[in-house]
Amino acid sequence: MRFATPDAVMEYALMLARRGVGFVEPNPAVGAVVVDEHLQLLGEGWHERFGGPHAEVHALAKAGEKARGATIYTTLEPCSHFGKTPPCADALIAAGIRHVVTAVIDPAAHVSGQGIEKLRQAGITVNVGRCADKARELLAPFVAFQCANRPWVHAKWAMTLDGKISTKTGHSHWISSEASRRTVHELRGRVDAIVVGIGTVLVDDPQLNVRLPEDWKGPRRTPARIVLDSRLSISPHSQLVQTARKIPTIVATIGPEHLQMAEREADWQQRREVLELAGCQVWSLPCGSTDIGLAHHPCLIHLLDKMRAAGMAHLLVEGGARILGSFLDLDLIDEVHTYIAPKLVGGSAAASPIAGKGRMTIFESEEFASGTFTTIDKDAYFHGVRRVAIDRLPWLAPVDA
Amino acid sequence: MRFATPDAVMEYALMLARRGVGFVEPNPAVGAVVVDEHLQLLGEGWHERFGGPHAEVHALAKAGEKARGATIYTTLEPCSHFGKTPPCADALIAAGIRHVVTAVIDPAAHVSGQGIEKLRQAGITVNVGRCADKARELLAPFVAFQCANRPWVHAKWAMTLDGKISTKTGHSHWISSEASRRTVHELRGRVDAIVVGIGTVLVDDPQLNVRLPEDWKGPRRTPARIVLDSRLSISPHSQLVQTARKIPTIVATIGPEHLQMAEREADWQQRREVLELAGCQVWSLPCGSTDIGLAHHPCLIHLLDKMRAAGMAHLLVEGGARILGSFLDLDLIDEVHTYIAPKLVGGSAAASPIAGKGRMTIFESEEFASGTFTTIDKDAYFHGVRRVAIDRLPWLAPVDA
Repeated sequence: MRFATPDAVMEYALMLARRGVGFVEPNPAVGAVVVDEHLQLLGEGWHERFGGPHAEVHALAKAGEKARGATIYTTLEPCSHFGKTPPCADALIAAGIRHVVTAVIDPAAHVSGQGIEKLRQAGITVNVGRCADKARELLAPFVAFQCANRPWVHAKWAMTLDGKISTKTGHSHWISSEASRRTVHELRGRVDAIVVGIGTVLVDDPQLNVRLPEDWKGPRRTPARIVLDSRLSISPHSQLVQTARKIPTIVATIGPEHLQMAEREADWQQRREVLELAGCQVWSLPCGSTDIGLAHHPCLIHLLDKMRAAGMAHLLVEGGARILGSFLDLDLIDEVHTYIAPKLVGGSAAASPIAGKGRMTIFESEEFASGTFTTIDKDAYFHGVRRVAIDRLPWLAPVDA
Repeated sequence: MRFATPDAVMEYALMLARRGVGFVEPNPAVGAVVVDEHLQLLGEGWHERFGGPHAEVHALAKAGEKARGATIYTTLEPCSHFGKTPPCADALIAAGIRHVVTAVIDPAAHVSGQGIEKLRQAGITVNVGRCADKARELLAPFVAFQCANRPWVHAKWAMTLDGKISTKTGHSHWISSEASRRTVHELRGRVDAIVVGIGTVLVDDPQLNVRLPEDWKGPRRTPARIVLDSRLSISPHSQLVQTARKIPTIVATIGPEHLQMAEREADWQQRREVLELAGCQVWSLPCGSTDIGLAHHPCLIHLLDKMRAAGMAHLLVEGGARILGSFLDLDLIDEVHTYIAPKLVGGSAAASPIAGKGRMTIFESEEFASGTFTTIDKDAYFHGVRRVAIDRLPWLAPVDA
């Protein structure tokens, strides 16, 4: 295979990189392609799973002796440090690579240009910034985890054509088609935790587990279930608590000192004990900001901090509307998955997907770096990454040699 | 051109018929195709504009002498009466057509199978029901007008990805893209009237006119603007009232006897006079049903009756949420046009497209006979016809000879 343009080589490397999504986290998804001076393909590879060889190593292995004098395209700066595997920069030098084209400098503290520096010192030319926008979108969750110290937040909801996530009675089974709901399980299989509010648990008693066919080849993680529950009012008989010994289940709450007088601390401690005996973890968090109506509710910033500390890189917020509203009001939503079913429900009392304070004007709502509508059976599916989620990360500007 | 199957001939006739949509109303959009025994195309035509020749006449003219002994496919039973043009059944007999394949019996009282009867008596075989579902969907607005004595109701709204038609402050300019908004004008150019609530007029002061490019080849009607305004509170300075001499403008209200004591009849009569002097029509309607929260609001059933009496065949309801809710609660929405913009607004106080009482469960919301999502620029666009809108019409069962 011969590529038409340098951009086409990098796009191909990005496509390879995406194959690792769901398998490599909290590492970045990276692709690498070795080509000769005519852009003839010599070798390719991607980071396939956490702890496994990096993309460059796979690509060099495929290229073999042909790598000598060749060019490698990498979607992220080659690493310069000993992690779970030896530094890729050393491997590229040893293989005799002459040119490196990379999309993005790795802003993580232990790399941050040192890989490029090492390559240049070995006499390799390094070009930085090709297809940088697309690469940043792919790498943003990794950079958020490494540099902003927080998980990447996916928000997901299914709504009707008239923007309802349930009828006025709270009925919502099912708004989206069976095919759409299957893709929700694929999404769950990629994340480390699912967050819902206690309201959703009380109404739906969900399992929030990953149900995928036997022959599913994609990632199949077992995300922790996190319930935001200020009063510890989740029932010990709920499906979540009942399955807490099999699937990690976290009840995020606030300390009893924040509750109304009527609810005595002793009761709270007792409920906590019951949940812990059932296998749940109880996270007692500070109260959220009163500014956005989160007084007496767990602070989401502290929640994300605690998740990050637990090594969780991807979080899926599934609702309800109040929880999604709080995440949006704090500008914490990074990536959006929306299912729209061709159904009408109506009703001024039926819930809309995102509550909270909300924006004042439409001007403030210009949102997505990339976003596409596709169809799944009869439903529409939107997937997009918010521009702010990428732009606020500490990317390093390329310095070309 | 030779068709592969009889269905393919009828699908082609339906495609031709659709070219008349917007031009022929309140007549039906009809297509006709003449073929020989090998399904070789001999002639084609469609009803092009109100008052012009019917589809069959065009198709026979194209086929000329070859029509003798041939088969004609028509999307609707050929007419048997003298209307603006002579009966098509006579024309088919005179042309020597041997077989007629038609999708649907015309349920209008002055046809209702008499066209088919006339053809059969002349020795022509008539087959009824091919592609009937698709033909019914196309003909439903005509049948609603002729047999159910009411206009066909289109509902249109533009919403964000989180199901909002405005922010909590009422700001909504613009949710959908410029390209989407252009197609709204195309839609307006097909209808006889646009309905909005007084709330929309007070917040947006819209023109509700048809703005299409000079070179637009599609229908370019001038729909009347109808404002539902129980208290006659529309401002004489509003754009609608200011332009009422150029574009028909109707204020639909209830009599002063239904208003609160505080609003005296004399005031009401004065406001009515001001509006009429400005060129508006004021329609004083009975109050709507209290069951669906329409006490003190104009009855929508009476509104539709009055529109039908005025010869209006297609109505476009553009909002706001309360008006759309009332139409849905009364099961009056026939066809839906939804624009979904990739934007997030949030806010528990932001409006959702359809208010009203709404449904109790999702089961009641299975809705569309056909419905498709497409994309317009960055937006998704849904268009569908509600199944109930077709099924409740008095279609006649085919009786094959």
